[in-house]
Amino acid sequence: MTTPHLLLDLPKVHRNIDRLKSHVTTLGSTLRPHVKTAKSIDVAKLLFDGTTGPITVSTLHEAEAFAANGFTDIVYAVGISPDKLDRVRALRAQGVDLVVLLDSVEQARSTDVPALIEIDCDGHRGGVDATSPELIAIATALGDNLRGVLTHAGESYYCYTEESLTAAAEHERATAVQAAETLRAQGFPTPVVSIGSTPTAHFARDLTGITEVRAGNFVFFDLVMAGIGVCTLDDLALSVVTTVIGHRHDKGWILTDAGWMATSRDRGTAAQPTDQGYGLVTTETGTLIPDLLMTGASQEHGVLSLREGSTEPLPDLPVGTRLRVLPNHACATAAQHTHYHLTTSTTTWPRLNGW
Amino acid sequence: MTTPHLLLDLPKVHRNIDRLKSHVTTLGSTLRPHVKTAKSIDVAKLLFDGTTGPITVSTLHEAEAFAANGFTDIVYAVGISPDKLDRVRALRAQGVDLVVLLDSVEQARSTDVPALIEIDCDGHRGGVDATSPELIAIATALGDNLRGVLTHAGESYYCYTEESLTAAAEHERATAVQAAETLRAQGFPTPVVSIGSTPTAHFARDLTGITEVRAGNFVFFDLVMAGIGVCTLDDLALSVVTTVIGHRHDKGWILTDAGWMATSRDRGTAAQPTDQGYGLVTTETGTLIPDLLMTGASQEHGVLSLREGSTEPLPDLPVGTRLRVLPNHACATAAQHTHYHLTTSTTTWPRLNGW
Repeated sequence: MTTPHLLLDLPKVHRNIDRLKSHVTTLGSTLRPHVKTAKSIDVAKLLFDGTTGPITVSTLHEAEAFAANGFTDIVYAVGISPDKLDRVRALRAQGVDLVVLLDSVEQARSTDVPALIEIDCDGHRGGVDATSPELIAIATALGDNLRGVLTHAGESYYCYTEESLTAAAEHERATAVQAAETLRAQGFPTPVVSIGSTPTAHFARDLTGITEVRAGNFVFFDLVMAGIGVCTLDDLALSVVTTVIGHRHDKGWILTDAGWMATSRDRGTAAQPTDQGYGLVTTETGTLIPDLLMTGASQEHGVLSLREGSTEPLPDLPVGTRLRVLPNHACATAAQHTHYHLTTSTTTWPRLNGW
Repeated sequence: MTTPHLLLDLPKVHRNIDRLKSHVTTLGSTLRPHVKTAKSIDVAKLLFDGTTGPITVSTLHEAEAFAANGFTDIVYAVGISPDKLDRVRALRAQGVDLVVLLDSVEQARSTDVPALIEIDCDGHRGGVDATSPELIAIATALGDNLRGVLTHAGESYYCYTEESLTAAAEHERATAVQAAETLRAQGFPTPVVSIGSTPTAHFARDLTGITEVRAGNFVFFDLVMAGIGVCTLDDLALSVVTTVIGHRHDKGWILTDAGWMATSRDRGTAAQPTDQGYGLVTTETGTLIPDLLMTGASQEHGVLSLREGSTEPLPDLPVGTRLRVLPNHACATAAQHTHYHLTTSTTTWPRLNGW
């Protein structure tokens, strides 16, 4: 297999899935995994013991492909625009319970399919306030199409202590429940109360009132999640396999054939206490090489060098040596590839890129 | 056509191609365009008046696909590793003059196909010094497989004046010629003297001794190139078409359906005097909207807001409005997509992603 390519460590994927499913189930709720990270029917089936189940999607292309593979309970968790409704209606007409998301009266008026109202719990992106009059106005505009409320604690990606993560999780829960209770008090049946992000899903201590928890990244994890403390480096299931193609001994650089085209330009750890460059480097079999980082990226060139201040020797890695790079952001790195290769077999699994 | 999608303004592509071809030809050299930006047979044919010609590639996948479409004069401008030689030999056996790149004796000894020696002209990435004994040692190891020398002034991306760009171009030329003369003085026939980057190709005033000029980005251009002064905003031929999906009036945000999945995470202008965020925003037909930038990106959400300090009003863009985003880095943004849509017809042009 030529390099660069994307490699999946399936035993780690299984362990990551089991951990979160068990946590959410123990707290009395249900996982509705977000398939936007893996964009893979094969990975999604691991989430449901080889069958199908409720999922969250980020594109209608995912919705259509998953529907074609038997997934019939789908939330499209990106604000809907009228031009996309034809595709939503077409899937619904096939018996797929595809539910959309919105946060304005304007959208609610032009939407004739079941919808969740997006609630803002932390100022991260879209959504209305759980206590705003807008919430009732949207529900009124939706009428029978109101399915419930949804929120996403996106700011939890910037929490670095167990205390702040637990607090973010509880705030996400409480905000969603408050919005649902507000709607119910006004006579709107609000069956769905949906929350989730990978950090808050793992740090939730209570899921009272929550009907479903969404999370996506946890199937693979990455350096950003390890930096937050949601996982350990040993949990990272996704890597980019690369080959050494040169050296700049004068600069302490090892050049590889994995540039940003293979890793993405995502530098999520740059904003964290420990900046991991474009990724940590391991041997071909996954053993971390002390202090070796991917520090630079052109389109098809990676630059590896020692972490600043390191006292480790630069390892002797001749041209042709294979290595792995553990990425900052699994969603972004996986998006640069069309297939997954597996550590456990020669099968490849396709990804559902595009819109 | 659903959004987000990639849009190509063909009249601008034609103009960009004509400008550089004319410049290089006038200076007595030949253009060997780098097809890594467009990764498109259709775009490449525009470079050669509908036929084929000498090209530079960044992956063997590009080499194979272009060879299958009649391109038989190809330089693979990423350092070769032994594991890739089988594919190189297979193409050469089909009559394709595919030439590889290397910069060490180690690589030269394991390479049995024609190769260029990479020369370092500005410390940007790989390559040997034009005056180093290593250069002669590599040539000796290559023997009859020595085809010539190649250099790339990657640091010209950080030049911001005509004076510094012109100087970078002349230094790139002089370094390559010096390396070639050094080899020739030692009895090595060195027919190819290859230089190029989009900035230096445009600012070269003299190409004496240069047999070919490589450049890739210029077919589309982007905000990084406009920031350097290599092109104007009006030359930018590539954009991402997106739809408004929401608003955060309290924050001055307009939300769109083009997140980093559609634009890439590339923030090349962040290091320039004028930071353009994730891109400048235009109307659906390409008119710039004053001071409106894409300032934030999640996977499938873009955040548009006014440039800091702007006195413009936030434009009224209802849900469903279509816009275009002009990207930081055309190579990276195009890489997020499988096809180009055209402003001039309903045809789509496929991209050659992958390795």
